[in-house]
Amino acid sequence: MRKLRIIGIGAGNPEHLTLQAVRALEQVEAVFVLDKGEVKADLLRLRREICERFITRPFHFVEAQDPERDRNPQDYAAAVEAWHTARAILYETLIDRELGEGGCGAILVWGDPALYDSTLRIVDRIVARGRLALDYDVIPGISSVQALAASHRIALNRIGGPVHITTGRAIADGLPPDAESIVVMLDGDPRFDHLDPELTIYWGAYLGTPNEIVLSGRLGSIASEIRHVRAEARSRHGWIMDTYLLRKPDGR
Amino acid sequence: MRKLRIIGIGAGNPEHLTLQAVRALEQVEAVFVLDKGEVKADLLRLRREICERFITRPFHFVEAQDPERDRNPQDYAAAVEAWHTARAILYETLIDRELGEGGCGAILVWGDPALYDSTLRIVDRIVARGRLALDYDVIPGISSVQALAASHRIALNRIGGPVHITTGRAIADGLPPDAESIVVMLDGDPRFDHLDPELTIYWGAYLGTPNEIVLSGRLGSIASEIRHVRAEARSRHGWIMDTYLLRKPDGR
Ligand SMILES: C[S@@+](CC[C@H](N)C(=O)[O-])C[C@H]1O[C@@H](n2cnc3c(N)ncnc32)[C@H](O)[C@@H]1O
Ligand SMILES: C[S@@+](CC[C@H](N)C(=O)[O-])C[C@H]1O[C@@H](n2cnc3c(N)ncnc32)[C@H](O)[C@@H]1O
Repeated sequence: MRKLRIIGIGAGNPEHLTLQAVRALEQVEAVFVLDKGEVKADLLRLRREICERFITRPFHFVEAQDPERDRNPQDYAAAVEAWHTARAILYETLIDRELGEGGCGAILVWGDPALYDSTLRIVDRIVARGRLALDYDVIPGISSVQALAASHRIALNRIGGPVHITTGRAIADGLPPDAESIVVMLDGDPRFDHLDPELTIYWGAYLGTPNEIVLSGRLGSIASEIRHVRAEARSRHGWIMDTYLLRKPDGR
Repeated sequence: MRKLRIIGIGAGNPEHLTLQAVRALEQVEAVFVLDKGEVKADLLRLRREICERFITRPFHFVEAQDPERDRNPQDYAAAVEAWHTARAILYETLIDRELGEGGCGAILVWGDPALYDSTLRIVDRIVARGRLALDYDVIPGISSVQALAASHRIALNRIGGPVHITTGRAIADGLPPDAESIVVMLDGDPRFDHLDPELTIYWGAYLGTPNEIVLSGRLGSIASEIRHVRAEARSRHGWIMDTYLLRKPDGR
């Protein structure tokens, strides 16, 4: 039986690691990371830093090239499926190679493993394939959503109200009618111009990192500033990750 | 200028504290806790334990009796308002008494301060009242929602899909029609019988604590077991805190 720990490492601030994560890291022999290509080199560096800081015994840092992914598939769900299987086989091979019987490895997951991350589905798939006896657990991490709220010093919900977490893709045609507090992730090109200008936006990029930028205000007044700042930062750093909360005005 | 740190401490597991939270605790002179009465004595104990474990210099643990709250108000929002003001005045008095000019204190918040917690609104109110010069920041913590997902080893979202976080009160008349993954918190008496039996439920109580209980399955098959286990545990411990994720079957 090999042991695998799926560790949420926070979304950019190494200080967001939990004590549970640190203790788990102290015991691993190998850390697995799939490289998502050059634009994410900064993110890879952060994972390396975390390992070097917290893993005291000898360990392997196992990087692999992420399998190719169809970025504009006709059938989105099927393409994701195929990609998950390819990643499962890759991880399976790496785990088999790097961990002996009874060995313990870790996969470091950005933010919290429970939010828009494929690692758990991949591990499910490895287990379902049944070729590798694997015992695994999940260590939660501070998500970018929480880093956003903390930096703005706000609650995500209105008093007693719901919070809807979604993607840029899902709000391309507008916000869900019933939602009042909407967190948007994975928005590669936030446009905002199809949205109610009376919304309040709380926006954050590179949250938790030394490059963190946060902006907030009435959407109609601040949308173009956000788009400008975002484009400028993105070209300066070569990549950007941003998240925002939209809040409907009271009584709508 | 006094400094106040609003620290998320996780929802029951002291190992869920972040390094940032630990470092912040090391510097405080006073920790403020409002006592919510007897049923929550276990939770107060956990806060005390955290302080004793992580605060190395002398500090004050300041407990106060939470102001009375109208539990069955005619106007829910107005009652919450009045209660927040009462709490703001109480905190203001305590901070003024316990922290000198330039002193640093902390409020420990259960889970993450961004989710169904009134602390940030109270601090906003203290600042708005303008009687106390206060510099404050927020340190995110692992929420019970993340502890739930980690214990079940699941993602909250379906692939690319939204996550709706809401309260027992809000789903009393049924689930929002568009939502597919619904996290329910603050449900004092989960009934389940008005919900689609084909939903999958991932339920967890006392998450992160030694008494943690998790159950999952088809709602129609497991609802009565959950209600039974819940009632039994609640009477044994004198209190219960539970959270659950409901997932609609594919294609609904
Ligand atoms: C694939 S999802 C992973 C989310 C991650 N599991 C989490 O818990 O934050 C990537 C998205 O998370 C958000 N994100 C992650 N890190 C971020 C950061 N440091 N600042 C702002 N947004 C971030 C962005 O919306 C990005 O498109
Ligand atoms: C007032 S809210 C506070 C939520 C908290 N800020 C968080 O981030 O988890 C209290 C609700 O959180 C959930 N909760 C908090 N701690 C929990 C635990 N250890 N296990 C299960 N549910 C918990 C329950 O739904 C409870 O009714």
